[in-house]
Amino acid sequence: MLNFNFKNPTSIHFGEGQIQAISTEIPLNARVLLVYGGGSIKSNGVYQQVTDALKEHTWFEFSGIEPNPSYDTLMKAQDIIKAENIDYLLAVGGGSVVDGVKFIAAAALYQGDANNEDGSGESDPWDILAKQQPVTKALPIGAVLTLPATGSESNGNSVVTRDGTKLSFSSNLVRPLFAVLDPTVTLTLSDRQIGNGVVDAFIHIIEQYLTYSVNGKVQDRFSEGLLQTLIEEGPKALAADTKDDLEVRANIMWSATMALNGLIGAGVPQDWSTHIIGHELTGAFGIDHARTLSIVLPALMKVRREQKREKLLQYASRVWQVTEGDDDTRIDQAIRLTEEFFEKMQVPTRLSDIDLGSKDIDLLVERLEQHGMTALGEQGDISLAISREILTQAL
Amino acid sequence: MLNFNFKNPTSIHFGEGQIQAISTEIPLNARVLLVYGGGSIKSNGVYQQVTDALKEHTWFEFSGIEPNPSYDTLMKAQDIIKAENIDYLLAVGGGSVVDGVKFIAAAALYQGDANNEDGSGESDPWDILAKQQPVTKALPIGAVLTLPATGSESNGNSVVTRDGTKLSFSSNLVRPLFAVLDPTVTLTLSDRQIGNGVVDAFIHIIEQYLTYSVNGKVQDRFSEGLLQTLIEEGPKALAADTKDDLEVRANIMWSATMALNGLIGAGVPQDWSTHIIGHELTGAFGIDHARTLSIVLPALMKVRREQKREKLLQYASRVWQVTEGDDDTRIDQAIRLTEEFFEKMQVPTRLSDIDLGSKDIDLLVERLEQHGMTALGEQGDISLAISREILTQAL
Repeated sequence: MLNFNFKNPTSIHFGEGQIQAISTEIPLNARVLLVYGGGSIKSNGVYQQVTDALKEHTWFEFSGIEPNPSYDTLMKAQDIIKAENIDYLLAVGGGSVVDGVKFIAAAALYQGDANNEDGSGESDPWDILAKQQPVTKALPIGAVLTLPATGSESNGNSVVTRDGTKLSFSSNLVRPLFAVLDPTVTLTLSDRQIGNGVVDAFIHIIEQYLTYSVNGKVQDRFSEGLLQTLIEEGPKALAADTKDDLEVRANIMWSATMALNGLIGAGVPQDWSTHIIGHELTGAFGIDHARTLSIVLPALMKVRREQKREKLLQYASRVWQVTEGDDDTRIDQAIRLTEEFFEKMQVPTRLSDIDLGSKDIDLLVERLEQHGMTALGEQGDISLAISREILTQAL
Repeated sequence: MLNFNFKNPTSIHFGEGQIQAISTEIPLNARVLLVYGGGSIKSNGVYQQVTDALKEHTWFEFSGIEPNPSYDTLMKAQDIIKAENIDYLLAVGGGSVVDGVKFIAAAALYQGDANNEDGSGESDPWDILAKQQPVTKALPIGAVLTLPATGSESNGNSVVTRDGTKLSFSSNLVRPLFAVLDPTVTLTLSDRQIGNGVVDAFIHIIEQYLTYSVNGKVQDRFSEGLLQTLIEEGPKALAADTKDDLEVRANIMWSATMALNGLIGAGVPQDWSTHIIGHELTGAFGIDHARTLSIVLPALMKVRREQKREKLLQYASRVWQVTEGDDDTRIDQAIRLTEEFFEKMQVPTRLSDIDLGSKDIDLLVERLEQHGMTALGEQGDISLAISREILTQAL
């Protein structure tokens, strides 16, 4: 096991009816900005429950956060924050809303870089993303999660898009102070949202698991338990006779939070190359985040099978109960089962499934190079050439 | 899954050399009381490392916390706290030291019960335990763990003994702000300490797992992963050729913390009857805590096999890979394997192993009654008669 520091102070309120917890989690004297995406929270009753819980609070609202939240949209929230002296942000939505609120929270109190190029000391919150300027202050955040997927509700990570480029930042100061996880609110999600969410969470776990062994037995078994849970429960959330089963939704929701709250990744190597390559697919072609991952991961498993051999065998045996045949047969079988699981979740596993071909790979590799993504993976040895090989394998 | 609130803000510093983290975790202007037990931390180098890390701080020390820390010892720390205006407590030791420091922290700022019997409003910290008076303030606590077992380093629980009676309290205000887990410091533990620690952690997991199913798949799999890890690693920490293996110690240490930090018990029923019955064995006969548990648990499994049938079968299959034979055969086999594991960890599994017999059961049942422990278990249906049956089964 590697040395680590782990701390996750987000207060989780899990279960039916827990939205009311925001009435006590947010101080009564706060000036709250309720931030959400489109209108779905109005049609499914979540908006009503949230505003009921805020009836003793002073609150305002800002909506229109889109999937892959854009810098331009997020910066528009600064006007109301200044005008109304907002001092608490409440994100109500999926990972995009929570990620967006994190940037809004950091941008609102960003003091800039006194050493910036023109020496003016002026603050441009874009620098948090583009120059990885450290966040030293941020507005406090609470979250009501409506789509289990990203784990953003209890971590400090945020991904923001500007002009087709996805950039991220991370800070403990933007980790939500509390998160409400009520699985009943996920019953109105579309199959596409469920499929994407389950696959996103699944691949978060894989990125912290499928590397090389450091004999972190607790981390490995926790990861395997989460993967097995998503494999069992994910398809049930799409099947006609089980899609309204609240227990299925609860197990998916808790798995997705645990998948990326820092716990399973503490003390083990990580490989985020599937995400990084996938980001370029979203940036260049507007593909849903999870659907980029389900295309890249199986290809990455095939191309990196030697480097990941030991863990692929463990994955085959413990997650898929594949124990017959020689090593390579078992690895092949595990990769095939992974693809079949993605297909059950109704996400693509090939570039051809989304009408991309070999002609598009140059652009993706070029963008990886532009973004400095030239040494990916747990050992930093996934070069641009290997990323190209992975994309070619995914054709 | 049941509704739950889960929050665990303890900052964990895990790995070799992490004791130095206390130099930055504790504010430089704090007046620190370093609290420990006997002299073992002086002979194994931990005291030196801790005091090196505190070299910029103002600190004092208080030692002599015994196993099953006594109220009288703990109250003696109040003198130095008052005299030196101590405002930060650093526990260095095992679960007893950390539990003891929690009581010291709460007692130091205890303001009493204005409505107490004599109406004097005088404060007697004993009321925190005896009357379960709420803790409203406590000194901040940091912990350097030397014995993986109780999970006390990242929870809010404390058990204190007075006149042969073990009483407990729980408060988020006494949860350590940070905990250092350096597995190298466990290499000097005795076999008895290791055996006790592994068994204590194992049974913490069982108490949150072996109840009835609420379909909490994440919690179940996390519990099963921890149990399997302790089953694999525990005996290695006692075997001549592997007892110096730091990876073994690291896996045990992280398992013991995860066993009782609130995570695996969130959203599932719990049954703490093994602990409660065990506490009377310690109180009446001075038996090591873990050795009371290893005697009570197998007997409880046998007496409660019908109520716990579904989970016992899951335990047999997933934790012990017992899949042959009918239901009762598999349950018998799982209980036998549990006993064999305890024997490998060199702890007793029968009252006769510690020279107690049927004549001693009356006293234990009498004490359970005195302490109001008349309705134990996940359903509150373990009466005094059933506790007697469990103790008789354990003969």
